[in-house]
Amino acid sequence: MNKTTLPPKGLFLNIKTTAETINILHKHFAPIVQGIESIPILEANNRVLAQDVYSQEDIPNFNRSTMDGYSLNARDTFGASANMPAYLNIAGDVLMGEATSLSLKSGEAARIPTGGMLPENANAVVMIEHTHEIDSKTLEVQKPVGIWENTVRIGQDIKKQGILFAKGRLLRAYEIGALAAIGQTRADVYQRLKVGIISTGDEIVPAHALPNIGQVRDINSFIIGSKLLELGAVPEFYGIVQDKADLIHDAVLACVEQNDVVLICGGSSVGTRDFVVDTLSSMGEVLVHGVAMRPGKPTIVAQIDGKPVIGLPGHPASTTIVFLILVQPLLAHLQNTTLSQGYLSAVTSRNIPSHPGREDYVRVKIKSIQSNAKCMMQDAGLQILNKEFEIATPIFSPDTKYLAEPVFGPSGLIHPIFEANGLIKIPIDCEGLNKGEETRVMLI
Amino acid sequence: MNKTTLPPKGLFLNIKTTAETINILHKHFAPIVQGIESIPILEANNRVLAQDVYSQEDIPNFNRSTMDGYSLNARDTFGASANMPAYLNIAGDVLMGEATSLSLKSGEAARIPTGGMLPENANAVVMIEHTHEIDSKTLEVQKPVGIWENTVRIGQDIKKQGILFAKGRLLRAYEIGALAAIGQTRADVYQRLKVGIISTGDEIVPAHALPNIGQVRDINSFIIGSKLLELGAVPEFYGIVQDKADLIHDAVLACVEQNDVVLICGGSSVGTRDFVVDTLSSMGEVLVHGVAMRPGKPTIVAQIDGKPVIGLPGHPASTTIVFLILVQPLLAHLQNTTLSQGYLSAVTSRNIPSHPGREDYVRVKIKSIQSNAKCMMQDAGLQILNKEFEIATPIFSPDTKYLAEPVFGPSGLIHPIFEANGLIKIPIDCEGLNKGEETRVMLI
Repeated sequence: MNKTTLPPKGLFLNIKTTAETINILHKHFAPIVQGIESIPILEANNRVLAQDVYSQEDIPNFNRSTMDGYSLNARDTFGASANMPAYLNIAGDVLMGEATSLSLKSGEAARIPTGGMLPENANAVVMIEHTHEIDSKTLEVQKPVGIWENTVRIGQDIKKQGILFAKGRLLRAYEIGALAAIGQTRADVYQRLKVGIISTGDEIVPAHALPNIGQVRDINSFIIGSKLLELGAVPEFYGIVQDKADLIHDAVLACVEQNDVVLICGGSSVGTRDFVVDTLSSMGEVLVHGVAMRPGKPTIVAQIDGKPVIGLPGHPASTTIVFLILVQPLLAHLQNTTLSQGYLSAVTSRNIPSHPGREDYVRVKIKSIQSNAKCMMQDAGLQILNKEFEIATPIFSPDTKYLAEPVFGPSGLIHPIFEANGLIKIPIDCEGLNKGEETRVMLI
Repeated sequence: MNKTTLPPKGLFLNIKTTAETINILHKHFAPIVQGIESIPILEANNRVLAQDVYSQEDIPNFNRSTMDGYSLNARDTFGASANMPAYLNIAGDVLMGEATSLSLKSGEAARIPTGGMLPENANAVVMIEHTHEIDSKTLEVQKPVGIWENTVRIGQDIKKQGILFAKGRLLRAYEIGALAAIGQTRADVYQRLKVGIISTGDEIVPAHALPNIGQVRDINSFIIGSKLLELGAVPEFYGIVQDKADLIHDAVLACVEQNDVVLICGGSSVGTRDFVVDTLSSMGEVLVHGVAMRPGKPTIVAQIDGKPVIGLPGHPASTTIVFLILVQPLLAHLQNTTLSQGYLSAVTSRNIPSHPGREDYVRVKIKSIQSNAKCMMQDAGLQILNKEFEIATPIFSPDTKYLAEPVFGPSGLIHPIFEANGLIKIPIDCEGLNKGEETRVMLI
C-alpha cells in the first residue's frame, strides 16, 4: 500500500448493459418470501403484502343510496317529467346508520340520505333535486330513474370470499383504507429487507471526523442508508473498511451472514476496486464486472451464499445513480413486488451529447414552464394564480410543461447530487438528445 | 335525530375554486417556524430544515484529482501529441488518503490516483490512457491537458462559510449526504406537524367493529392517517363523533388546542354536514364553504384560534382527493417548504367528459405502452428485455409512453380508490378531454 498502483487499461472482465444486469439479478436471486410479520395497518404504508387478502364480508352489506333523495321502485317513475310528474306516497324515513324495517308497496317512496339503506322492494333512488314534496305524505317526481340508479348494491364494492389483494401488493394509504373497510386492522407483510453497507477506501473517514488533507468523509453510507429507509428497507452499517484484502473479506463475510443484500461502496482508489473484485471472486461468483453505463462503469455484481453482493463505485454521484438504476429494482424484486417509480415528461434545455456504447445518465433540474394549452387559456383566474404559486406551491394544472436542465460538474462533486431532482437516460446506441427534445425524466 | 332531514337546494354559502381556496389557506395561515428539533441526519429524510446551513470547511480541502493518472503542470504538456509526445520526469507517487509533501519542479510529474491530492506546483492531471511509462523515471504524455483539467480545486464543491442549504429546504437522501460531507451529523428541522383527525357520522363504526346493517367502517381515518405519516406529519386520532352539535363542538375544541391542523372527515349524512359548518361558524370563521371541484364540493375551510380546520367530505374517495389537492399543499406551506409531487404525462384511453363550472378530478390507472422512438428502435437488446420486464420491473427507458385509463364507479365505492395510481384534473372551464389527448397525471 505504499506505492500508487495504476490500473491496466481495459480493467473490466465481464461488462454488461444495465438491462442485462437487471436480468441477471432477477435470474439469480428469487424473492425472499419466508419472513412474514403481522403489523398494524397504519404502520404498513410502503410495505408488501405477504398473504392474499380475502374479504369475510360483502361491502356494502346492504343496498346503499349514493344520493340524498327518495328510495322507491324505479318502475313508479318511468315516464315522469317536469310537465308530467309521477306522484308517490311517502311511506316514511330511512335513518342514517340504521337498518330500516320499511317495506315499500307499489307507488310508495321513503326519504333516504346518502349512505342510507334501501327499504325492502326499493331498487332505485331519485335525487332530491328532481322531486318536490307536495305535503308530508305526497312526493312529486319530475324525472325517471333507472333500476339501481343512485345505489350501490350488496357486495358491489367488495365481494364476500372474493380476493381483495394478492400477495406482493405494495400497500399505499389507499390499500390500507380498503383493509380497514373489511375490518382487517393488521396486515401480514414481508419483513423489511436487511441491507448491509460496507464503505471502503483508505481516504474515507467517518462523517463525524475531521478529515486530514487528502481524506474525505463517508457520504455514501448516508445517501444509501437514507434511501434504504425511504424504500422500507433496514440499513445495517459495517463502517469503513481499509483497503486490505483480509479486512474486506471478513467484513463481507459478516455482512453476507447477517443481511439479505450487501452493498459495498467502493473507495475511488484503484487498489480498492481490485481488492473488492478479487475478494468477491474468492468468496463466490462474480456475475457482472463492469456495467456499460456512465457513471457507474466499475459496478460489480456477485453472488455469495446465494445472496446478492453489489460493489458500487466510490464517487457519491456514481453510487447514487447505480443505486437508483440497479439496486432499487432489485430490492423491489426481492420483496416480491414491483417498483413504484415516478417519471415526468420534459423537454431538454440544451443539447446533451453522449457516446454510443454506453448508457449515459444525466442529472437534471426540472423546472415548470408557461403553459399554452387551450383549457388553461380559458381558465384565466387559475392562470394568474398559477403564476403567483409557481414557486411556493405549484397548483396542479394538467397542461404544465417541464424543462429538464442538465446539472453538469466534474466527477466526484457533491453539488450536482443535491441540485438535481431528475435523471435522464440516454440509451446505449443514441448519440445524445437535442435541445427541445422531449424525454422521460426519472424523479429522484 | 329521529327524522331524515333533507337539505335545501343550493346548500353552500361561500363557494371558491381550488386555486382560490389554496390562496386563502396561504394567506390566513403562516408557516409554523417556532418548533425546532435537532435530529440525527439519518432520520431527517423528508423533514424540513429550520436553520440555514453553512459549511465550516472548504470541500474539498485540497486540490483533488478526478482521474487515475499523473499530476503535473499543464504547461509541460502543451503541444504534446501521439506523434510528438512530451517527456517528463516521474518525481514520485501521491498516496491515497494522505497529504503529499511532493513539490514538482518544471518538467516533473507524479503518479496520482483518482481522489488523490495534487502536489505543490501541479495544476492538472493527465489521464493514464494518454500516457506511457518509458521506465520508472520517465513519462511519455501523448495529449495536452488544460490548466486544472481533471481536478477539483479547494472549495470548488462547497465553499467555507458559504451557505449550503437555506431553511425551508426539504431534505432528501442527497441533502443528507451533503450534510455528512461537511461533518454535520445532526440537523435542525421543524417539528412534525400534529394533525388531529375527527371522524363524524352516525353510520360510522370503528374499523375493528362489525358493522350492523346500515353502518360502515371508518376508512377515512386510516387513509388520511397513513397519508399524513407518509408526508412526515403526526396524525392524532379523535375517534368517531356522533352527529350532535355539542359533541362536535367539544371534539373540535380539544383538537384545535392540541394540534396544528384539524381535519374533520364528515359523515356523508346531510345532518353531519350542517352540524359541522354551524359548529365551526360558532367557534371561529368559516373561510370557504363549498369548493368548485368534483368530488369534494362539500369541503369547508375554517379558522379557529388561528389554526386551519378543514371539513372533508364523507366518502373516502372524495376525502382522499380533497386531501391530495388542498390539504397536502397546506401541510407543505405550514412546514415552510414546497410540495414535492410527482407528475407524469400520459394520453387518455377514452373521452372523459366534464361539466364546465367545476374542476373534475378523475382517477386513472396508468399503463405503459409500446415505445416507438428512434433511440429505442436502435437499442434492440433493451427493447426485448423491456418487453420481458414490462410487468415485473419496468426498465427506465426515456421513450416509454403512458396511457391513462379512467377508473369510474358509483360514488362511495372503495374500489376506485385503490385501483387508481393517478389523478387527472379537468379545469373549470374545460368540457373534457378527448381520447388520445395528452394530459398531466398527478401520481398518487
